[in-house]
Amino acid sequence: MAERDEGTLGMLMDDLILVSVDDHVVEPPDMFKNHTPAKWRDQMPKSIKGPAGNDVWVFEGNQIPNIGLNAVAGRPPEDYNMDVTSYDQIRRGTYDIHQRVRDMNVNGVLGSMCFPSFPQFTGQLFSRTQDKELGLAALRAYNDWHIDEWCGSYPGRFIPLALPPIWDPELMAAEVRRIAAKGVHAITFSEDPTRLKYPSLHSEHWDPFYKACVENNVVICLHIGSSSYIPTYEDAPFDVTITMTPMNLFETAANLIWSPVLKRFPTIQFALSEGGIGWLPYFLERIDYVYERHRFWTHQDFGDELPSQRARKHFTFCFIDDKYGIEARKHIGVDNITWECDYPHSDSAWPTAPEAVMKHFDDSVTDSEINKMTHLNAMRIFNYDPFKHIPRDQATVGALRASASDVTTSGIY
Amino acid sequence: MAERDEGTLGMLMDDLILVSVDDHVVEPPDMFKNHTPAKWRDQMPKSIKGPAGNDVWVFEGNQIPNIGLNAVAGRPPEDYNMDVTSYDQIRRGTYDIHQRVRDMNVNGVLGSMCFPSFPQFTGQLFSRTQDKELGLAALRAYNDWHIDEWCGSYPGRFIPLALPPIWDPELMAAEVRRIAAKGVHAITFSEDPTRLKYPSLHSEHWDPFYKACVENNVVICLHIGSSSYIPTYEDAPFDVTITMTPMNLFETAANLIWSPVLKRFPTIQFALSEGGIGWLPYFLERIDYVYERHRFWTHQDFGDELPSQRARKHFTFCFIDDKYGIEARKHIGVDNITWECDYPHSDSAWPTAPEAVMKHFDDSVTDSEINKMTHLNAMRIFNYDPFKHIPRDQATVGALRASASDVTTSGIY
Repeated sequence: MAERDEGTLGMLMDDLILVSVDDHVVEPPDMFKNHTPAKWRDQMPKSIKGPAGNDVWVFEGNQIPNIGLNAVAGRPPEDYNMDVTSYDQIRRGTYDIHQRVRDMNVNGVLGSMCFPSFPQFTGQLFSRTQDKELGLAALRAYNDWHIDEWCGSYPGRFIPLALPPIWDPELMAAEVRRIAAKGVHAITFSEDPTRLKYPSLHSEHWDPFYKACVENNVVICLHIGSSSYIPTYEDAPFDVTITMTPMNLFETAANLIWSPVLKRFPTIQFALSEGGIGWLPYFLERIDYVYERHRFWTHQDFGDELPSQRARKHFTFCFIDDKYGIEARKHIGVDNITWECDYPHSDSAWPTAPEAVMKHFDDSVTDSEINKMTHLNAMRIFNYDPFKHIPRDQATVGALRASASDVTTSGIY
Repeated sequence: MAERDEGTLGMLMDDLILVSVDDHVVEPPDMFKNHTPAKWRDQMPKSIKGPAGNDVWVFEGNQIPNIGLNAVAGRPPEDYNMDVTSYDQIRRGTYDIHQRVRDMNVNGVLGSMCFPSFPQFTGQLFSRTQDKELGLAALRAYNDWHIDEWCGSYPGRFIPLALPPIWDPELMAAEVRRIAAKGVHAITFSEDPTRLKYPSLHSEHWDPFYKACVENNVVICLHIGSSSYIPTYEDAPFDVTITMTPMNLFETAANLIWSPVLKRFPTIQFALSEGGIGWLPYFLERIDYVYERHRFWTHQDFGDELPSQRARKHFTFCFIDDKYGIEARKHIGVDNITWECDYPHSDSAWPTAPEAVMKHFDDSVTDSEINKMTHLNAMRIFNYDPFKHIPRDQATVGALRASASDVTTSGIY
């Protein structure tokens, strides 16, 4: 448990500095143009117009649904389930980097880590290629576009996040080294690889990947849905699925805390992306309880630590809107909590994320705690220093919003 | 949210009154003797000795594992996974009603609701019979034994709990009426009938059963594992499964809160048995969040209520050892929290349950809150009045323990 925080009280919303560790990019149609070796130019995924004006990706002769088109930013909630099929029906900030930064500004958000859309959270698309050389070329082109073009266009505004070639742990390790050399400290992986027909998180199969991440200070980001699994139930209202999805990461955390992986790699780092934080006081108490009652026959051994302490060493959590989790922050660990915006998905409060997060910071939350949860933890965990590029006084909600007074926040822009 | 409680502070452990809404009975070998119609006498399940001295149940020619034999009360934790195969290796209080009451006394427990062992939590065994008339006869014999003999031997000490014939909703309704006429107000059901190859909890298929429960003030008790499903993971340490099992009921609660069942039966009552409570502040906040953000397109409508308020009307929760849940009780609803001992399973603190529960009641918990959580809520919810039979001053931890000073608490007794 962190020491009682000595920070002062009374921060204003305009003085917040917001770094979001989970947003989403809808890949623009021309994303492969500048990043493809000549050899593969004709085989890269292509965004094409279908007969009904719909946009789809085509890769190895297959049409791939453009799942990014479910972006709802700018749309009223009544329309969240409308059948969107083309770029011209979604907000430009979802796929256009210049408009994205303007949408961040109007929302007071300084920094953002963007998860992929059409390749799926851990690049499942590339792993399904018939020609694995092509798969690797496309994945590398994707990473280069993401790092150099998407994030690179606005230094200090993004935490780059790479995709791994999950079909080969040695290639994964090589990609970790390659992206780390470009200054990247985050890579996605699957919350449950068995659902993708790979060995489990526990398996030594992944050790080359884990080892490369540890050696290069790369955090493994496990996003809900990165197992291509969303809980669905026979004839249940869809609200059940929405309610349940964060529990994917409860399950992932339960697997990892008892896993030999943490023993083989004592400094490995996992971020549980879009999992929320309100369940963590229970989870952390539960793992200590299981340890105290059952270790005698399950033969777990955490030395002079408790599982909850170990969890705080290895896991980072993030919240969008967890009033209760913030209230219970001392049971979670204030140093382990980061914030996310989830732009442009339907759980996002964009363009009023500052208002949404501020309402959880009552008088008991000190400025120092607020700063940790809104940006300092994310900066430490992901080796991210926006202030090298942007003076602190231009990085606040108030300053960013002042720079974006011309941005229209309803509609597709 | 309940009003701020005005109760006084400073209750002593010996003054607690403990009613456990989740314990387990290991059915004794002679349980069918007094409760079987002559017609079926030869066909009832029989407990027999195998060649290696092991005890098994035989029914319709099949051997049924005696799962109750995993009872660990009295055994040291190092032996929790030992392969126990016969009655003479387990504590007598697990299957002998007289010794059971002595084990309750030495543990300071006044009242107990006992879930079944070999027929499984919702009588799955009886539903698998070839001859469904035989299945129904055995189920009714089981209920009669449980109500009249097990619970009936010690008036005021047990909350009787019936099993339903899940293969036929009309028979379920008839059994609800039959057991209600015997004064029973609790029946088990499955946390997820689809895993048992039946229609989901949402289905109108179950309406006759639901209707009978509502009309007869019978609470539907959903125990973890009552879907015959325990979460297991490829090559994961078993600790993962232990950590995850309460989440079965998170899933059940998520299904029920959005279910048309609550709309069809506005007074129906569910008890989530052995689910713990520490996850509820998050769950209740999550369902309100899902409602506020998504109801415009999922078309949920709770009128002038929030889902969290509705949940408190329909659901009862229970805890064994949830320090955090007790601290967060006002976020859960103090009137919805009951206590359980889980004797004789490995999560039970027997014979030191009073010490285990008392350590969660710090100075902020009022006597009135303690009394609600330890017994008053259970009495209200299950229409159970032990004080008709036992004076209040003889019902406390101190009084019960004083009556059991001769009970040996280690070993099989």
